[in-house]
Amino acid sequence: MSERRVGIWMVGAFGGVGSTTALGLAALARGLTPPTGLATALPEFAALPFDDATQFVVGGHDIRQTSFGRTVGELHSRSNVFADPLLSTCLPQLGEWSLNVRPGVLYRPNAILNTLADRPGLLLAATPREAIRQIQSDLRAFAAKFELTQVVVVNVASTEPIFAVGPEVQRLATLDAALDTPDAVSLPMSSLYAYAAIDAGYAYLNGTPSLGASVPAIEELARLRQVPMAGQDFKTGETLMKAVLAPMFRKRNLKVLSWVGHNILGNRDGLILSDPANKATKLKSKDALLGDILGYKPQSHVSIEYIESLDDWKTAWDHIHYEGFLGVKMTLQFTWQGCDSMLAAPLLLDVARILLLAQRRGESGSLTACAAFFKSPMGGVTEQDFGTQFDSLTHYLSR
Amino acid sequence: MSERRVGIWMVGAFGGVGSTTALGLAALARGLTPPTGLATALPEFAALPFDDATQFVVGGHDIRQTSFGRTVGELHSRSNVFADPLLSTCLPQLGEWSLNVRPGVLYRPNAILNTLADRPGLLLAATPREAIRQIQSDLRAFAAKFELTQVVVVNVASTEPIFAVGPEVQRLATLDAALDTPDAVSLPMSSLYAYAAIDAGYAYLNGTPSLGASVPAIEELARLRQVPMAGQDFKTGETLMKAVLAPMFRKRNLKVLSWVGHNILGNRDGLILSDPANKATKLKSKDALLGDILGYKPQSHVSIEYIESLDDWKTAWDHIHYEGFLGVKMTLQFTWQGCDSMLAAPLLLDVARILLLAQRRGESGSLTACAAFFKSPMGGVTEQDFGTQFDSLTHYLSR
Amino acid sequence: MSERRVGIWMVGAFGGVGSTTALGLAALARGLTPPTGLATALPEFAALPFDDATQFVVGGHDIRQTSFGRTVGELHSRSNVFADPLLSTCLPQLGEWSLNVRPGVLYRPNAILNTLADRPGLLLAATPREAIRQIQSDLRAFAAKFELTQVVVVNVASTEPIFAVGPEVQRLATLDAALDTPDAVSLPMSSLYAYAAIDAGYAYLNGTPSLGASVPAIEELARLRQVPMAGQDFKTGETLMKAVLAPMFRKRNLKVLSWVGHNILGNRDGLILSDPANKATKLKSKDALLGDILGYKPQSHVSIEYIESLDDWKTAWDHIHYEGFLGVKMTLQFTWQGCDSMLAAPLLLDVARILLLAQRRGESGSLTACAAFFKSPMGGVTEQDFGTQFDSLTHYLSR
Amino acid sequence: MSERRVGIWMVGAFGGVGSTTALGLAALARGLTPPTGLATALPEFAALPFDDATQFVVGGHDIRQTSFGRTVGELHSRSNVFADPLLSTCLPQLGEWSLNVRPGVLYRPNAILNTLADRPGLLLAATPREAIRQIQSDLRAFAAKFELTQVVVVNVASTEPIFAVGPEVQRLATLDAALDTPDAVSLPMSSLYAYAAIDAGYAYLNGTPSLGASVPAIEELARLRQVPMAGQDFKTGETLMKAVLAPMFRKRNLKVLSWVGHNILGNRDGLILSDPANKATKLKSKDALLGDILGYKPQSHVSIEYIESLDDWKTAWDHIHYEGFLGVKMTLQFTWQGCDSMLAAPLLLDVARILLLAQRRGESGSLTACAAFFKSPMGGVTEQDFGTQFDSLTHYLSR
Repeated sequence: MSERRVGIWMVGAFGGVGSTTALGLAALARGLTPPTGLATALPEFAALPFDDATQFVVGGHDIRQTSFGRTVGELHSRSNVFADPLLSTCLPQLGEWSLNVRPGVLYRPNAILNTLADRPGLLLAATPREAIRQIQSDLRAFAAKFELTQVVVVNVASTEPIFAVGPEVQRLATLDAALDTPDAVSLPMSSLYAYAAIDAGYAYLNGTPSLGASVPAIEELARLRQVPMAGQDFKTGETLMKAVLAPMFRKRNLKVLSWVGHNILGNRDGLILSDPANKATKLKSKDALLGDILGYKPQSHVSIEYIESLDDWKTAWDHIHYEGFLGVKMTLQFTWQGCDSMLAAPLLLDVARILLLAQRRGESGSLTACAAFFKSPMGGVTEQDFGTQFDSLTHYLSR
Repeated sequence: MSERRVGIWMVGAFGGVGSTTALGLAALARGLTPPTGLATALPEFAALPFDDATQFVVGGHDIRQTSFGRTVGELHSRSNVFADPLLSTCLPQLGEWSLNVRPGVLYRPNAILNTLADRPGLLLAATPREAIRQIQSDLRAFAAKFELTQVVVVNVASTEPIFAVGPEVQRLATLDAALDTPDAVSLPMSSLYAYAAIDAGYAYLNGTPSLGASVPAIEELARLRQVPMAGQDFKTGETLMKAVLAPMFRKRNLKVLSWVGHNILGNRDGLILSDPANKATKLKSKDALLGDILGYKPQSHVSIEYIESLDDWKTAWDHIHYEGFLGVKMTLQFTWQGCDSMLAAPLLLDVARILLLAQRRGESGSLTACAAFFKSPMGGVTEQDFGTQFDSLTHYLSR
Repeated sequence: MSERRVGIWMVGAFGGVGSTTALGLAALARGLTPPTGLATALPEFAALPFDDATQFVVGGHDIRQTSFGRTVGELHSRSNVFADPLLSTCLPQLGEWSLNVRPGVLYRPNAILNTLADRPGLLLAATPREAIRQIQSDLRAFAAKFELTQVVVVNVASTEPIFAVGPEVQRLATLDAALDTPDAVSLPMSSLYAYAAIDAGYAYLNGTPSLGASVPAIEELARLRQVPMAGQDFKTGETLMKAVLAPMFRKRNLKVLSWVGHNILGNRDGLILSDPANKATKLKSKDALLGDILGYKPQSHVSIEYIESLDDWKTAWDHIHYEGFLGVKMTLQFTWQGCDSMLAAPLLLDVARILLLAQRRGESGSLTACAAFFKSPMGGVTEQDFGTQFDSLTHYLSR
Repeated sequence: MSERRVGIWMVGAFGGVGSTTALGLAALARGLTPPTGLATALPEFAALPFDDATQFVVGGHDIRQTSFGRTVGELHSRSNVFADPLLSTCLPQLGEWSLNVRPGVLYRPNAILNTLADRPGLLLAATPREAIRQIQSDLRAFAAKFELTQVVVVNVASTEPIFAVGPEVQRLATLDAALDTPDAVSLPMSSLYAYAAIDAGYAYLNGTPSLGASVPAIEELARLRQVPMAGQDFKTGETLMKAVLAPMFRKRNLKVLSWVGHNILGNRDGLILSDPANKATKLKSKDALLGDILGYKPQSHVSIEYIESLDDWKTAWDHIHYEGFLGVKMTLQFTWQGCDSMLAAPLLLDVARILLLAQRRGESGSLTACAAFFKSPMGGVTEQDFGTQFDSLTHYLSR
């Protein structure tokens, strides 16, 4: 029905992925661009009642003082990516949506977040509960203002350090009891956002390697509140290649001796990852799938380096050394040169559309059929072969 | 049962693939090498009653005056591939098997074949029927001498030019009637070998892009004689990568703008392909699958060049230009450096084992479940996604 | 002196290189861009009295009906290259200069030129002399209108097929005598332009592999008219790399076994080169220098393919196979991704500035000191080591 | 004179480079291999009285219990590098030379050296003087036994950590006074070897990034004892490429924005470098030259990772991002795949021959004309352009 409206609420909205998503929605709604990059626009899914671009309203949280228009403008001037009329035609819409982005909420922020946070009006919450309440209040106001039938909350904020969680996150009752006490809960900010969204009944999507909803207590909450969720860490470039090439070696019974991957990029994501604690979270997510696919762990090495001049143009060089028949050693190398935000934004839209549909279908908890979109699929998925994951998605959607 | 023996008969036996196959069988039978590269040795197929390496006897046809030992020795000295004790331990066995390789049969050979043919005793047949009779006589003598329960005949001879077939190959009756008359049949030598093998009741495998059994009359013959067959053109390096990467672009809805592949190699296969007529057959086989997978034909270009110093080390550079979200153009490049014979030989053994098993199961005609092994799968297969092809194989074998 | 004005007259002005040169001059004159890419702007040449960008007036010939503004606009929309304010600020200047581009002159054009030629008012000359007179008339009108102290004529028109010259081009007297008779002269159009420019006393620069001034009779004319000239074929990407890397192998006494270079590009230059006759001229120019540098000819292969989606982004993959100590074979590969016009235009400006200075210094004939800028340096230069060529340039300029 | 014999004494003799040098000398002396890789064998140096391979006797120090034959055997079985008869023919000579390798001398060894040191009879010296005396005693016994006219001492031992030297190494008198006291001297073992060699009148060559002779007091000693010396750190693969490519960018006035280099290798050198302290020494040596050549420091990143399966096949991927005309950003990538020991050994022989000649010519101190062979040339050399360095060498040798 043309009257129906849905919301997409992005935490870290003014980042590269968030802003590209907003621009993409505006451009798709105006017919300025074909839906290239969107799996949900493939012919085999044409009959499914996904929300179309004209139905989306965009909002979010951010701790930085900027706007969608400014971010995509910077992206364009640094990385020279967009065709000309597209950007100027969409700027007014981006301006409207920027007004829907509320000051981010902070609880026990680390040093690098404090450096980035330059927006007036940020709430530095005293307890997890206070943070959650503020987030829910912002979400509800957004839904009410635009008369939204559904909202999906998406985490595209900067990657957090690896977080050692405590026993209180294993069960919902225990977690709930601890939320009112400062320092009683061992959860990062991404998890408080996830809790807030799900508790308020909104579908949740984690596009980053941060913890988010990936603890048993929040999974329990999602089932209780009848909310579907998906994550974690969009599978865009090098890791997508691993999920595609490792099965080839496996099925040909070629023995991978070593797999080295070097990533260089120059956007804010790269800058955040130049902090070793944040980088560790990301590297773990990029490297885990090889063993799952091959059935053994070859020597592997993954690096990510911040190279300023590359801006959003992430370049990955992978060197795969393998043994074939009669012990002969051979080599495959690839260089992937992609614009990071352009690769992630359509995955965000795909999963958002799937989650909104799933919620209407009455599903809840981790949506394992979305594994094809993520480096570390939630819900205990161990299948990491991209082809098989895509078959699962097709099967799920067509049922 | 340990008494059972099977034969593998290779046309073009002394080429790189044939000789590597012989060395591989000898090494596997002696436990000198693990079955790396053999899909039929994957754990999921462990329960299947495939013939093992100790059961195989090797024979074949060749028009060149050489031996398995000499070919693998040259391969080793030029390309430095084998670990030391393996080669010396297997030489006596290779010597025995070389005695089973009979002079090749020629009918209307082209210039390049005439240059290669240096073996005494080659039969230059006056009619197709004469060629077929000689081949069958050699095959039956081999089976009788070694008391073979089954034989699989494999084409690994040099690639032939593209062949314009006439109407007489559409039906078996018409073809049969024409075989006795010189020049009444428009079939290359590879097809006469295929006819001979299948007519005598032997399973047939075409590892090259030459025509072989790929005409309706021979398919009819295979069903009549209860013979399974498979082909065509082993999918080893660059084309395997295409069959793996093109589905990734398809499933991510990324639009491939152009796909350029340059291949350089320096073995006899490369020399044969430096003849433009032969090269055309190969290029057609390498390029066709993109359109089948993507659903549209991007601009594509494939080249193969003979670069002598590379010997058996085939190197392919592919440049894939694609369009992503919001029309942004990105690039994937890969370099595949593989030893050509080492990549093809295990596929030969895989399909040979599958065909022998299929014949025992009572199957006949083109074995479409073997599509994962070939660039141009026989039997009307249009599915070119390697992952899906492998699923078919798994499903077929496990039933 | 600020009053002094000089002209740059480009044959094929509206091509990618010509239009980028015009845009570059306009941008440099306005201080919108630093002189990156210009060797004549290096600190070691700072004291030399080169003409600066503000002193140049642009004109030329073209057979196509377009303009500088349109060409750079297309280049930008297809290849996304220019920073935003630069283009819009320079458009009025480009508009003025477009008016100075006269209809091209044709004599015995081949099929592909006829296809491109869409401009009204093109002269199809009946004799070489008629073509020369028209060109000189256009040049003199340009010089007079803008009160130019000097003019340099530059060939950046599409590459012509290899031309078999006759004996009449060996001496000026013989050539002159033949110019009035149709079909008595075996020279392509590029050579008639060169004759016209030099005969009228204007410095001449050939940026393409076409024949241009490279015949003895025109060299004689250049000395007679006191005109310096330079060429041929700008050394931009892959060939520059060869001129830099081959000396490394030579000086380390490493033996190059094979050198394979594949070039893909999608601009008009690429389209012209998709005609085999034109391509032959280019490939010869790209491949010759290896033997000169190494002292022996390794197996080499060069290809150029037109891949439309790449537009002006020329990509070259080179695979160099070499032998080191104790006969061990090793490999170097490189991928060069450059914007073709951006690489050639600064070379054009460099050589133009050097020629104008040389003419003021009273020099004439082929300027061998410019070898560093060209694939096939004029004047009998055999030194192809880029470092040594650059030392020659430095020495020449500083004397 | 055919009677003349010279010695080459390698510290760390049984490493990959030392053993390959020994094999190379044996093979060259027997005419089994051409002098590929030796700059001193270039035609332009043919008239110079260099010692030829038949004149060399090999000896050295090592802390490991192994032999030349075993090391080259392992190198061959892991990396498959040598043509067959070469190795077996040279084994007896390698066996003789292995007897000349004395137990290494240790003074304050670090943990990793202690792990490697498995040879009986190693001297753990109490003072620097004791270490020096033992080294000199071994050297003199070698020279006496084989009646050597000259000896060159070469450091090819494992890279040491960066060493903070104290004020006592600034002047020879101060250093000499401190050598008898434990812990009064802040020099690593490589410097004690250098001191010992030079003090005994033997030419000295440092093929590694370790400190060696690179302190003022030892330079003073070299001039006093009339001993020439050269170093430091052989310029073999990636850094050679930098010394060749960076001048190209400089001379074309192209602005390098970033230069990223990733190195992977699997030999003992790689294992040593997997210790962060040792790696730091190497990375510094690999990265310094860019600024010297370009005149500014672009962002750069260099990594070295130990990837076991690669053995001696060092692979480097470099990504160079640069800005051209009108601010357009372009990219050059290269992959260098070389066998590390095969690249270094001929440089060792080249510099050894040059040093022996220089000593006969009466030269002493750092031989700056050898800069072309080293990553960090000794003697205050700042010229890092390989072409210019080679010109210096040519000029020096031909005078």
